[in-house]
Amino acid sequence: MTEQQAEIDLLFEDAARLAVRTLREQQDRSQPVVRWLEPEELTRALELDLPVEGRGLDSVMELARKTLHFSVRTGHPRFLNQLFGGSDPAAILGEWIATLSNTSMYTYEAAPVGTVVEAALIKKLCNYAGFREGEGVFAPGGSISNLMSVLAARQRAFPHVKQHGLRDNERPVMFASAESHYSIPRAGIICGFGQSATVLVPVDEVGRMRADELERLITEQKKAGAIPFYVAATAGTTVSGAFDPIAEIAAVAQRHDLWMHIDGSYGGSALLSKKHRALLTGSELADSLTWNPHKMMCIPISSSATLMREPGHLVEAMGMNADYLFHQNADLQWNLADRTLQCGRRVDALKLWFSWQVHGDRGFEQRIDQLFDQAHRFRQMIRERPGFRLIREQEGPNVCFRFLPKSQREAHGEERARLEHQATIGIRSQLAQDGSFLINYASLDGAATFRMVANNPTTDDSDLSALLDAIEAEG
Amino acid sequence: MTEQQAEIDLLFEDAARLAVRTLREQQDRSQPVVRWLEPEELTRALELDLPVEGRGLDSVMELARKTLHFSVRTGHPRFLNQLFGGSDPAAILGEWIATLSNTSMYTYEAAPVGTVVEAALIKKLCNYAGFREGEGVFAPGGSISNLMSVLAARQRAFPHVKQHGLRDNERPVMFASAESHYSIPRAGIICGFGQSATVLVPVDEVGRMRADELERLITEQKKAGAIPFYVAATAGTTVSGAFDPIAEIAAVAQRHDLWMHIDGSYGGSALLSKKHRALLTGSELADSLTWNPHKMMCIPISSSATLMREPGHLVEAMGMNADYLFHQNADLQWNLADRTLQCGRRVDALKLWFSWQVHGDRGFEQRIDQLFDQAHRFRQMIRERPGFRLIREQEGPNVCFRFLPKSQREAHGEERARLEHQATIGIRSQLAQDGSFLINYASLDGAATFRMVANNPTTDDSDLSALLDAIEAEG
Repeated sequence: MTEQQAEIDLLFEDAARLAVRTLREQQDRSQPVVRWLEPEELTRALELDLPVEGRGLDSVMELARKTLHFSVRTGHPRFLNQLFGGSDPAAILGEWIATLSNTSMYTYEAAPVGTVVEAALIKKLCNYAGFREGEGVFAPGGSISNLMSVLAARQRAFPHVKQHGLRDNERPVMFASAESHYSIPRAGIICGFGQSATVLVPVDEVGRMRADELERLITEQKKAGAIPFYVAATAGTTVSGAFDPIAEIAAVAQRHDLWMHIDGSYGGSALLSKKHRALLTGSELADSLTWNPHKMMCIPISSSATLMREPGHLVEAMGMNADYLFHQNADLQWNLADRTLQCGRRVDALKLWFSWQVHGDRGFEQRIDQLFDQAHRFRQMIRERPGFRLIREQEGPNVCFRFLPKSQREAHGEERARLEHQATIGIRSQLAQDGSFLINYASLDGAATFRMVANNPTTDDSDLSALLDAIEAEG
Repeated sequence: MTEQQAEIDLLFEDAARLAVRTLREQQDRSQPVVRWLEPEELTRALELDLPVEGRGLDSVMELARKTLHFSVRTGHPRFLNQLFGGSDPAAILGEWIATLSNTSMYTYEAAPVGTVVEAALIKKLCNYAGFREGEGVFAPGGSISNLMSVLAARQRAFPHVKQHGLRDNERPVMFASAESHYSIPRAGIICGFGQSATVLVPVDEVGRMRADELERLITEQKKAGAIPFYVAATAGTTVSGAFDPIAEIAAVAQRHDLWMHIDGSYGGSALLSKKHRALLTGSELADSLTWNPHKMMCIPISSSATLMREPGHLVEAMGMNADYLFHQNADLQWNLADRTLQCGRRVDALKLWFSWQVHGDRGFEQRIDQLFDQAHRFRQMIRERPGFRLIREQEGPNVCFRFLPKSQREAHGEERARLEHQATIGIRSQLAQDGSFLINYASLDGAATFRMVANNPTTDDSDLSALLDAIEAEG
């Protein structure tokens, strides 16, 4: 063994030890969720420079340790900030192996293992969605999966668009709920329709799209000479975690010949649970579905499945048939680049495969049920605590709530909203800076509201009541 | 320590051992580059199923071993198939740590370390490009970086597009060389212009865009009522590795007020070399540059920098200012989601940071010089071997060539081209199937040609002459 080989051996051993220590420490509630520094302070603390002369291989473990020291511990039970959380050793190992073998998913030839594994996973996810003849591909995140659904829909509605673009006077219109993710209107911008081409449909009191309003708006747009072609229902909205009524929306979409997409980036995973899959009843009627295993299923970022009910749409919308990639008679079933916006593409399939092998459908189902239960229990706690109130109360994995300190609880109407808004922003910023909890907020009905997300099953009732205690104490 | 913790410890130790063994074995020339199986055979060999009941954590090392056994060894010195190769332990570790800490680059709050590291790297790369006030962001690959450049250009030329889309009768036109990557015309398709809106400019005898032809075509399009707004020069074309004449193209672009992009996905790394950076002379005049450290710099896929000469364009083209991500007064310098097509985004910065620390500018420069030298020596070998001839002969890291067996060398004209075409396809397929070499082919002037890419410095002269021997023997 050469000296350099010995050095590499030691380094990888160190990395493995650091990994297991990190996984263990992030469960330690006496450790902060994050050691907060401002960007300039952090740059100094990392001694971040990019040297002209290399410092050798033995200098990297120090970078690894610094990185982990100052990173947000997204696996910590008190990280409640984003639509993901926890960590899964099997999935981490899958990603490590993918990095090690470092190849690209454009062709079967370059990525034989990744290709057949992705095919098996896509088939499994399609089965859960009810897409019996479905096909799909992994994309670098929900926003890009959603964009791909708009591209497929555009191609079906305007078949001349790929070659010649839209015709003059052709005004496509898309629909999504007022609480949908910004990637839907942005997909319309990217496609060249402009933001004004996405009509936001009003929601009901818990944040679900109103199918009657959808139909009214479609009719209105048609009368105005526009061409409605696409509607995105959301399964698990970003802020309130609401599930749009999919079967109702599908009926409207069918009557008006719209492509129906489900943005299940967040809530698609509810399909895994016998108890909660009714939230997506009617999914088999949709034309496409985005589903991110990197959210509730705890796969490392990114793992985003773009699923289509019928085969062929992705290649029709995006295929370029470059001859340096696809040799004669290349089988499009096994050469996936033409289904995507990418050319080179990471092997995202391995991590989900490894995790599925370890947990099985049942393990994932159990996880989803735990997360829904956790949110349910947290809602109960909030109902019982004076000063707290639920906003957009529904049964999903998000809990939106506001708080007022005792001295301010007499306030009413706009004044109360203003005070709650201030309290939310001030308290969550304080919690982040002392590192005790990371919990996000967002605007609902014009005022800030806390958003707790149940995405880590190791978050327990003591964490949740400690969160409410901390909010009270800061307030 | 719990039993499960002990199991995780063992598993990560095993993974580290497997990693170092893999890195070592891929240097072993007695091992095949790939153990070729057809997709159905491979599915069986992997015993690929997704169990309903989980099989437990200790079942994953077997998956890891099978994955590596059947994967293409892209770090093998005889893997010459794609525009990447080799492997870098420091960069692999950087990616492992990023996976372990599993966060998302939308905001500084969620990814403090990734954000400041990415800023430092973007600044470094901008300096090499000559973008003194530049800004940028990492994207999931060159195709998406190129798309982002088209979106930025579209927004500058048609400022109403983001809100309202194109106006009737507005016909944007883009230009790229006839040998540019398909992601450029596809970006035009995605943006809604249609494939016909990308005009492919003829190339000279070595595959470089002809600036005089570009100017002629721009003028022609203007006369026809179209609006030329974008030209992509390529630094390192996919097949022949040609570098378009950037300064000449920039002069044309300036005269006609076009956004000038450089697709340096492949060849941008030549900027690191004092000896070869003249190939990109004039880069500081471009409006944007795509540069993939995952190609010649050997960073694991994907690492693709989207660089802009002037700040602001990315946010103008793509920013949505979602209030659940960007809280009041969010500093756009440190909250990067609005520069991208994504929302959640992997932390791609760490792996390049780790690698830069180990190698420094000098180490990267040395690597780039080695790769250019290797291609140069290979061209010499081909010139000296009867039956072989170079195609699109230039000085970059790609070598395109054809071969004819002795018995067929009397053929001329179309007959010769037909025979070379057949020989190329037949021989490279045989090499792939016996696993001795993986070398790609592509079509040039209507006939298949071998394309050797110098992307792994450990590929030595004995590998290169063994390749020519093997081609002769198969022929």
